[in-house]
Amino acid sequence: MSTLLISALDVGGVNIKAAVVEVGKPHRLLGFCTHYFPIWKIGKEGLGDALNQVNKTLRLECDVVALTMTAELSDAYQTKREGVEHIVDTVQKIYRGKPIYVLSTSGSFFHTEASIKAPLEVAGANWVATAWLAGKLLNSCIVIDVGSTTTDIIPVLRGRVAAKGKTDLERLQNGELVYTGALRTNLAALTRKVPANGVLTPISAEHFASTGDVHLILKHISEDEFTVETADGRGRSLGEAYARLARIVCADVEMLSKEALDKIARYLYKVQLNQIVDALKKVLRGVEPKDVKVESCLTLGIGRCFLAKPAAAKLGLRAYELSDLTTLKPSIPETAVALGWLLASKLGGDADLCM
Amino acid sequence: MSTLLISALDVGGVNIKAAVVEVGKPHRLLGFCTHYFPIWKIGKEGLGDALNQVNKTLRLECDVVALTMTAELSDAYQTKREGVEHIVDTVQKIYRGKPIYVLSTSGSFFHTEASIKAPLEVAGANWVATAWLAGKLLNSCIVIDVGSTTTDIIPVLRGRVAAKGKTDLERLQNGELVYTGALRTNLAALTRKVPANGVLTPISAEHFASTGDVHLILKHISEDEFTVETADGRGRSLGEAYARLARIVCADVEMLSKEALDKIARYLYKVQLNQIVDALKKVLRGVEPKDVKVESCLTLGIGRCFLAKPAAAKLGLRAYELSDLTTLKPSIPETAVALGWLLASKLGGDADLCM
Repeated sequence: MSTLLISALDVGGVNIKAAVVEVGKPHRLLGFCTHYFPIWKIGKEGLGDALNQVNKTLRLECDVVALTMTAELSDAYQTKREGVEHIVDTVQKIYRGKPIYVLSTSGSFFHTEASIKAPLEVAGANWVATAWLAGKLLNSCIVIDVGSTTTDIIPVLRGRVAAKGKTDLERLQNGELVYTGALRTNLAALTRKVPANGVLTPISAEHFASTGDVHLILKHISEDEFTVETADGRGRSLGEAYARLARIVCADVEMLSKEALDKIARYLYKVQLNQIVDALKKVLRGVEPKDVKVESCLTLGIGRCFLAKPAAAKLGLRAYELSDLTTLKPSIPETAVALGWLLASKLGGDADLCM
Repeated sequence: MSTLLISALDVGGVNIKAAVVEVGKPHRLLGFCTHYFPIWKIGKEGLGDALNQVNKTLRLECDVVALTMTAELSDAYQTKREGVEHIVDTVQKIYRGKPIYVLSTSGSFFHTEASIKAPLEVAGANWVATAWLAGKLLNSCIVIDVGSTTTDIIPVLRGRVAAKGKTDLERLQNGELVYTGALRTNLAALTRKVPANGVLTPISAEHFASTGDVHLILKHISEDEFTVETADGRGRSLGEAYARLARIVCADVEMLSKEALDKIARYLYKVQLNQIVDALKKVLRGVEPKDVKVESCLTLGIGRCFLAKPAAAKLGLRAYELSDLTTLKPSIPETAVALGWLLASKLGGDADLCM
């Protein structure tokens, strides 16, 4: 029997994440990669080249493609309809003749024409893959996936996705999508004021610094983990991060001491953590049926240790990582891997995934 | 007697504003211009060319230069010290051999070497020029200058600047600098939530839309007055502004009706107006000595009609524009003109300014 290889693609607005899964008993993760592709900067015309680059990195000829996307929200596109159509078309061109399965927010896979006809059914659906995975591993739990840009908080009950929202708009309204991330979030979007030299000070509205600067200063991440562009285009050293942080109160490193800036960083961390805790509370309150007890959570993403886990702890939830429950390494692009695993299970039957 | 011509330069982070004033009785405004120069995008190396461009537009050979700046805060520079030095040096190179007067936050003019040695004394001092002008025209009042990017709220008592803050940091803390503007402000920095289809909805942290979109939709400004780059680099039509606004709740114009988007725009306008009213209250509370009654204000900037005046009205202040009190047209770059007038008065004696 010949094997079936799935290329799973999560086309985000900032990164393209990819995983290759071989269908079998167990399924096997043969390769994965994350390709930095800020589509709103480079332009949608660059998507085909970026996908070719992903294939070059993976060096594995696949038989079918699993696709999910969030890049359609980027302002490279005027509407989600335009975005979904362009992304699906481009993937079709690059993977000529291969069957393409597009994940929908209901958990089923759409053919390409169906997804182009119903763009809101497949737009921003990548969270469905991680929710499916959480249901498989923990039965009833909450997924807390803190990525570079956004945070997903998804209730999973008795193995099934129990989210109230489908579209990004509904998910924002229900606390299931929190537009806060571990690296890229503009600090001006996080809070209106920070303490500077003892005074709660209104901050600049520019994009002078990002959450990545805060987490670098607080040693939550290393320079290597700061994988996105900085706000001023400069480097990722501690000195450069402090300079960016000082600018948010229209100051500089000659006006504010390292201690004063550390205080601002700790304050901003608390604000971001509370933002996630508040959304988590809202999601927990909405869980139905009420008789199902949710006592654990699956923490994912670059912010899982310093944002997802402390948020879970505040609400008494037991936190797991993927590496606690599987043989998968923490460094994998989790959503793409979950997507590949999901399609492998649909095409080849329920089975574990091994590296 | 030969005449003395002053070139007054307000080097901002987004625009260079310039005015040429002839010293006399009265002083005369011979020319002015605004040159779009987003220094953090183009790079500080472009400043010399931009200044040459300004001179080409003005076509007037000046004898002395009056200089003020806010561009040193831009992340084109690591510190204000570096920014002030580079800006002063560049102006010196372009206006070779001509005396350069750098405005300080105390209202006096510094020579170039003195300003480079004490950068915090001259950084972000342009508000001093408009405050001086307000004192001249209204004696005791509040300046409310709503620019494209920031708002200055400066108390002037018995003809003298009565601001509590000198540096941008102190001015933020005292409500005298509000980092909110009529065109460029990222809506994500203005508020955390907006009403969408009846639900107060958390918004995206990206820079998807700006206050210029809100004020265009509400007909506060025309397309021609939307003089800065849009958030997505697209045009300034109403349709394009609606598309940007829809994106802040991760939606698009197919998901939200024009009515729903108008509601969001009106909500954001109210938030911005309240932001200015709150700062204005804070400044009024701090006015000292308490026996001086402040009953009027001088409204300036692109947002003077739809932000400064309604804010003043809410607090019972009588609002004036420059064109109510002088023969100057509303279209002039007010800060540069005030700077030129201030230096003309120091060099040639107190007198009116005519066009």
